[in-house]
Amino acid sequence: MSVVMEPTDRTRIRRGRNRAVAERTDLLALLTDALVAHLGVTVGDHPVVLPTAFAVDVDGPDEGGTLYVHGSVAARWLRSSAGTTVCVTVTELDGLVAGRSAFHHSMNYRSAVVIGQARVVEDEAERQHALDLIVDHMLPGRSATLRPSTRKELAATAVLAVPLAEASMKARAGDPVDEPEDVTAGIWGGHVPVRRVLGAPVPAQDNLPGLDVPDDVRDRAC
Amino acid sequence: MSVVMEPTDRTRIRRGRNRAVAERTDLLALLTDALVAHLGVTVGDHPVVLPTAFAVDVDGPDEGGTLYVHGSVAARWLRSSAGTTVCVTVTELDGLVAGRSAFHHSMNYRSAVVIGQARVVEDEAERQHALDLIVDHMLPGRSATLRPSTRKELAATAVLAVPLAEASMKARAGDPVDEPEDVTAGIWGGHVPVRRVLGAPVPAQDNLPGLDVPDDVRDRAC
Repeated sequence: MSVVMEPTDRTRIRRGRNRAVAERTDLLALLTDALVAHLGVTVGDHPVVLPTAFAVDVDGPDEGGTLYVHGSVAARWLRSSAGTTVCVTVTELDGLVAGRSAFHHSMNYRSAVVIGQARVVEDEAERQHALDLIVDHMLPGRSATLRPSTRKELAATAVLAVPLAEASMKARAGDPVDEPEDVTAGIWGGHVPVRRVLGAPVPAQDNLPGLDVPDDVRDRAC
Repeated sequence: MSVVMEPTDRTRIRRGRNRAVAERTDLLALLTDALVAHLGVTVGDHPVVLPTAFAVDVDGPDEGGTLYVHGSVAARWLRSSAGTTVCVTVTELDGLVAGRSAFHHSMNYRSAVVIGQARVVEDEAERQHALDLIVDHMLPGRSATLRPSTRKELAATAVLAVPLAEASMKARAGDPVDEPEDVTAGIWGGHVPVRRVLGAPVPAQDNLPGLDVPDDVRDRAC
């Protein structure tokens, strides 16, 4: 990676600088781990936040690489966000932090905030590429096992590209940080780890008889 | 519940009406299950989306009940969102849907979008109540085991209240919906269930010797 994560005025972390993890490798690791992004767009006079699948192309055409989200061409939020500044936030919850007081309860997490001008991907090849990346982000290796998308499918798929140039990351891990008098009072503190588990694949009811679960799907389960 | 979830023009689901779950009980169940909300606020000329702990008081003072998020009084987003329309989105990922084509890949999920005017909670008792609700949302029963927050702690805690009156919910579950010719071609389709697992509590390194894990924390682990 030649592009380092340089916080701008918009993404610079103003609170909790001790939690700022200014390393792009950590950002990209989080964007690999996480499966859902929350996209914030302005609709009329207020923000709307929507969950979306996503994928990253570190060699994408946008400054710092490209983060892709996709949706239906009929989706209002997608149309209205073209050319505007959007915010894509990706969060993984890692634990519940039980402090010795209500005030010091917290969560362990990793979160990335990407702010940038949204570009509607017009080029059909780039749209196909983005769609494949999103499929492979969910199920690594799967896109290579599928037929190419049809022109009709590509025409019905809208893809939004957001540059990865302006990104900030925060993370918290480990123990609560409590008032000394609450610790010495003998109140228990600690944390409850949280993780995401992928279960055994469930075949669709309309599968033809005798089909094996493909390797890419089977390998995804923990 | 006397208040039903009535979509307004802002929260009415325009895409995927078949996925709209217009039942408030489902909304409240999701808001109970989920641990992290994504709050969208307008900062300057663009949206910013931040992950946050939250809690719901169905009998709260706002129309439809109250959703509380909290943060530091020094946090810029919190100050700038007072009195403005914000969006709080809560999403739980339930599965990865492996279609027989890239186009029909999807996710199983539940997602709630709440849009409303943010109210900064000025009353100290309501702020204490909200803080306790947020602690109990993470670890049910824990707030009753803790000392009351000090005035200094309450003064350092900013709480934002958002009415639950304008909320919409979407959910997807089950099998992929594919093109018939891809199904009969014998391509495997199905889904990979995703769930969140809470592990065994990890005691803080500065715990006094011999402390037992409290019941509320132990009961939270799966």
